[in-house]
Amino acid sequence: MLNFERLHTDPAQGSYLGSHARRGRLRLNHGEVQTPIFMPVGTYGTVKGVMPRSLHEMGAQIILGNTFHLWLRPGLDVLRQFGGLHRFEGWHKPILTDSGGFQVWSLGAMRKISEQGVTFASPVNGDKLLLTPEVSMQIQTVLNSDIVMQFDECTPYESAGHITTEDEARVSMTLSLRWAERCRMEFARLGNPNALFGIVQGGMYENLRQESLEQLVAMDLPGYAIGGVSVGEPKEEMQRIMAHTPHRLPAHKPRYLMGVGTPEDLVEGVAAGVDLFDCVMPTRNARNGHLFTRFGDLRLRNTRYKTDEAPIDPSCTCHTCAHFSRAYLHHLDRCGEMLGPMLTSIHNLHYYLALMQDVRDALDAGRFGAFVQQFKADRARGV
Amino acid sequence: MLNFERLHTDPAQGSYLGSHARRGRLRLNHGEVQTPIFMPVGTYGTVKGVMPRSLHEMGAQIILGNTFHLWLRPGLDVLRQFGGLHRFEGWHKPILTDSGGFQVWSLGAMRKISEQGVTFASPVNGDKLLLTPEVSMQIQTVLNSDIVMQFDECTPYESAGHITTEDEARVSMTLSLRWAERCRMEFARLGNPNALFGIVQGGMYENLRQESLEQLVAMDLPGYAIGGVSVGEPKEEMQRIMAHTPHRLPAHKPRYLMGVGTPEDLVEGVAAGVDLFDCVMPTRNARNGHLFTRFGDLRLRNTRYKTDEAPIDPSCTCHTCAHFSRAYLHHLDRCGEMLGPMLTSIHNLHYYLALMQDVRDALDAGRFGAFVQQFKADRARGV
Repeated sequence: MLNFERLHTDPAQGSYLGSHARRGRLRLNHGEVQTPIFMPVGTYGTVKGVMPRSLHEMGAQIILGNTFHLWLRPGLDVLRQFGGLHRFEGWHKPILTDSGGFQVWSLGAMRKISEQGVTFASPVNGDKLLLTPEVSMQIQTVLNSDIVMQFDECTPYESAGHITTEDEARVSMTLSLRWAERCRMEFARLGNPNALFGIVQGGMYENLRQESLEQLVAMDLPGYAIGGVSVGEPKEEMQRIMAHTPHRLPAHKPRYLMGVGTPEDLVEGVAAGVDLFDCVMPTRNARNGHLFTRFGDLRLRNTRYKTDEAPIDPSCTCHTCAHFSRAYLHHLDRCGEMLGPMLTSIHNLHYYLALMQDVRDALDAGRFGAFVQQFKADRARGV
Repeated sequence: MLNFERLHTDPAQGSYLGSHARRGRLRLNHGEVQTPIFMPVGTYGTVKGVMPRSLHEMGAQIILGNTFHLWLRPGLDVLRQFGGLHRFEGWHKPILTDSGGFQVWSLGAMRKISEQGVTFASPVNGDKLLLTPEVSMQIQTVLNSDIVMQFDECTPYESAGHITTEDEARVSMTLSLRWAERCRMEFARLGNPNALFGIVQGGMYENLRQESLEQLVAMDLPGYAIGGVSVGEPKEEMQRIMAHTPHRLPAHKPRYLMGVGTPEDLVEGVAAGVDLFDCVMPTRNARNGHLFTRFGDLRLRNTRYKTDEAPIDPSCTCHTCAHFSRAYLHHLDRCGEMLGPMLTSIHNLHYYLALMQDVRDALDAGRFGAFVQQFKADRARGV
């Protein structure tokens, strides 16, 4: 089940040219999601260092799981026994699972791609495994995720020492299209009650992106993603694709930009017409002492914070900012104490989710253009 | 400030011989503590992997901090600026700090003990440091802990390949007594508004323990601890000292058994007349997948838990048991996910605190003897 309703768009007004931004409501089998939204990443059935109840408190509406990882550990027997990922991990709101395509791609030399699928050695125990479009659908059906991603080949930006050529990108893109069709068939055969998203590929070539999206749209899937970004390309290349593809996808269906990005990227992505985002950046950066705030990023390991009694962001309402100082968090980081990444992960995720709430409020109030200006000015100010 | 009130004792009844157990109420500068109580250990200003709010929820009333560690990191400048440890770590109920004696003792060959104090190289940056009774009092005054421990020399059970002789234990014990007096003087000179506890030493020799406690009692300190246990001695030796010392201390003052122990040790300790316990066991064991339950200990890494849908302990009311299965916790441990130790630490600490609540309820109801029998039978049953 998937139902997507556009509530508002961002029209031109006076000298403001408007944008492709949309405010929407997405209904899925495990609940409702207000868009645009950021989705915290829970690779192994846990958003690293964050309890489900903290996710609820910070306003998370949908989280990610990784098909590839969960297939290897805990494995399908366990997940089947629990009736899927929701009960296993104690998260009863919507979940999106990726297809495993990006992860097998990341294995590099350890995997072999053919028309049938991807053969690779399990990084956990060395077993030889085959992941195909059909297997990916079967796994995701066991996971019972609300949004299922098609199995695709992630086209690299660069490989074997050269930037991927148009011909190479086309070969890869057309393979992903054939896999999309196989996913669609298998998803239907399995009677999966959730929603299957197609993934637009085509590397950094707009004409290939256009071809990919047209053929996927012809399959009439309930939602679409833009894949093959955040794969090592320069920022401008990502921005070029982000400006090209989202608004060309069907307006009445949700759009998901995979693996992006910084707070600035998210706001630009919304303006480009994206509804759903995911990225490991808030949690990974939190663990490295890189914190996001309204007035720019804060590097917690800087010794200037050793005696700083202020919270990370005085304008933030998260649990961490309500109770703990920069000095304390600096100390925890320095001592390698687990509470450090626990508290900074809460803050960074809260920042991303609150930013998306602000975006939704601005769209509801018809002042998205003004919001973007203020957001950029604030972020550029510096902590 | 310290006020200790004995509410109940555990009298003989029929064939039951009674015990030295006492139910008490301890009033300290940052609040009230119901005894007997277990105190979670927060070495570096954090109970490892546990948020203060989780500590509140599980009924923690007083936690520990380590003088030695906090002196090195974050250092006194930071702690002074925050007005002490409470505000720095966001814990506003009572705190007990140890004196640093046990930690410098643990440095082994890296330290040198003299009448004046202990010279050692900082394990953080190699600086040569001197910790004396006076310095320990000065640090703990900055920390503003509710209970301040005297600086003592922890007499080892064994050193240089032989069990500590009575002569060696006497030399060490009398040094600790002289240090106790210096602590008392410095504590008074500093005008510290909290409560200083003396520490009974004497190794495994009851006559020395007796001498130590008599001289400490003559100093009329507001509370006393039994130190120099959990230092590598066989269990029976610890039990012999635990049976000897606590009930010989003044009945109207709180008694603290340092660094002990298993759930069984705690219940025995209460019967021996102890009011306060601390131990890293619940948190350290949690991180190693060793979980405590009403019906014995559970080794989470055992593959039998891979598909086990039950909570760690079906009779437990902690956040972890209310929301997560053994299978999920087994999975988190296997994947090295931070959420694993976060959730198991909550469970183990909750187990210890709930056990002490049961002990207090039993003492209030005059059925401590029956409680101990049931407790032992339950624990021996096995998970």
